[in-house]
Amino acid sequence: MYNIEYDRLKELVDQHLLSFLPEIDGKSGKVREAMEYSLNCGGKRLRPVLLLSACKFCGGEERRALPFACAIEYIHTYSLIHDDLPCMDDDDLRRGHPTNHKVYGEDHALLAGDALLNSAFEVMIRDLFLYMDERRTLLCHIRALNEIAKGSGCRGMIAGQCADLESQNKQCSKEMLEYIHLNKTGALIVSAVRAGAYLACSDINTLDDLSSYAESLGLAFQITDDLLDLFGNEEDLGKRPGRDVEKQKATYPALYGVDASRQKVLQETENAVRIMESYEERGSFFVQLARALAERIS
Amino acid sequence: MYNIEYDRLKELVDQHLLSFLPEIDGKSGKVREAMEYSLNCGGKRLRPVLLLSACKFCGGEERRALPFACAIEYIHTYSLIHDDLPCMDDDDLRRGHPTNHKVYGEDHALLAGDALLNSAFEVMIRDLFLYMDERRTLLCHIRALNEIAKGSGCRGMIAGQCADLESQNKQCSKEMLEYIHLNKTGALIVSAVRAGAYLACSDINTLDDLSSYAESLGLAFQITDDLLDLFGNEEDLGKRPGRDVEKQKATYPALYGVDASRQKVLQETENAVRIMESYEERGSFFVQLARALAERIS
Repeated sequence: MYNIEYDRLKELVDQHLLSFLPEIDGKSGKVREAMEYSLNCGGKRLRPVLLLSACKFCGGEERRALPFACAIEYIHTYSLIHDDLPCMDDDDLRRGHPTNHKVYGEDHALLAGDALLNSAFEVMIRDLFLYMDERRTLLCHIRALNEIAKGSGCRGMIAGQCADLESQNKQCSKEMLEYIHLNKTGALIVSAVRAGAYLACSDINTLDDLSSYAESLGLAFQITDDLLDLFGNEEDLGKRPGRDVEKQKATYPALYGVDASRQKVLQETENAVRIMESYEERGSFFVQLARALAERIS
Repeated sequence: MYNIEYDRLKELVDQHLLSFLPEIDGKSGKVREAMEYSLNCGGKRLRPVLLLSACKFCGGEERRALPFACAIEYIHTYSLIHDDLPCMDDDDLRRGHPTNHKVYGEDHALLAGDALLNSAFEVMIRDLFLYMDERRTLLCHIRALNEIAKGSGCRGMIAGQCADLESQNKQCSKEMLEYIHLNKTGALIVSAVRAGAYLACSDINTLDDLSSYAESLGLAFQITDDLLDLFGNEEDLGKRPGRDVEKQKATYPALYGVDASRQKVLQETENAVRIMESYEERGSFFVQLARALAERIS
């Protein structure tokens, strides 16, 4: 999608995504079907790819990070299913397919989302048992688990979703918009790289650099999404554009205008690039990724 | 509620329930308010009390089990909030109060449920950091965490909720009814005692006995609830009775008749009692609790 290494990691995630789901029996098969439906609907797999590449960057084995990588995609997917529900954004289309509740009904979509969030934790917790006799590795895994739990919770992603709800249909301050973006999209992206780094028992300095990189990347990514919602077409986006305006959502273009928003994307991208360029060749994957994401609006 | 020891443990849970919630800032205050609303709406606190008493029974310190006890109540509360939503059971009243979405709207109720589930894991995972230098205790805590994650997931509570959806408005087999009861209510009750036992690094035999006890208790508890829905009044129940019949839910009385259902409650209660009577004085709390729960329909 963005370069060969990205495609390789994305492929790895796609191959393993369903294999870590907890086994369930036929009697609750429809919720499982609904879970798989949304997991199979495509997507960039940005969060798991970031987790795997951060782990590798810090000297870890990417295969050992796969359960956590898949778990973070379960969390992202659950958040999309719940976000699309009629009582939230009420969207019919996602990644070019009918949204989960359009296919399975609101009741099953709700449960499928709940089950994906719970499964994410089940998968990561089960993974800890592999390291019961390797104290240092076990502690690093617990730190990674803690990082993801924080990023997806009400000090992270859910805080952003809630602030997003609060700010609809009313004047939103710049401070509030920043808060929404940093939490709703940013928190889980930052958690992805931090968890990846923790899994490799990274040192603090590298952890800090990766965090700053991910924060800038996440912000650039979200503003790009806001711009694409204004100017993109349904085929490329996989969903109907113009929804943010309809719903009077707080977005960068709405608050700062289109030009300043593009400027902000470039600025955050350069910030991200600068941090990882200091690692020279070793940081090139992250540099290329930041540039490629910004190119979506060039 | 059932005896002095039960009341003491319930009080302990009530006192600490809000204190373990992750701190959040004002910008997402409404979701926090919605979370607290449902946590404050009363309830028997059966699951956390079972967890604490199982921990104590196995020689553990109940104070050290408090974070897990509160976490399991967060999970139970989230499941009630989501169950009450219009797309699920569409209930207006719960524990004598308007349901969460009636007060905060469906969107905030959805997020409050998500946030409570996520918070449960955050609290338990954060708790692990206290035992980083006590290997045996840490491993026991991870086992307890794994137990709760399984019990609340799509091999536990969610499996039961899904099977419950599948069986509405159609003929439900006895096998399916058993499956629904064992999972929807039973799984988290069994997980509560097992997690409590794990936190105290219990031996396998005691763990097995507590599990069998909780399975019988959970079944008796659910059938009692089914019966109360038929014969109870709104004031005692805190919700409108007769909803199961309206929604053509699969229940014990509907499938086996009232007399056979009462018989089943007594039989499961005696089974639970017999297991814990073998521990003589030490098991008396569990014996009394099983008898007291069955008395709700006497």
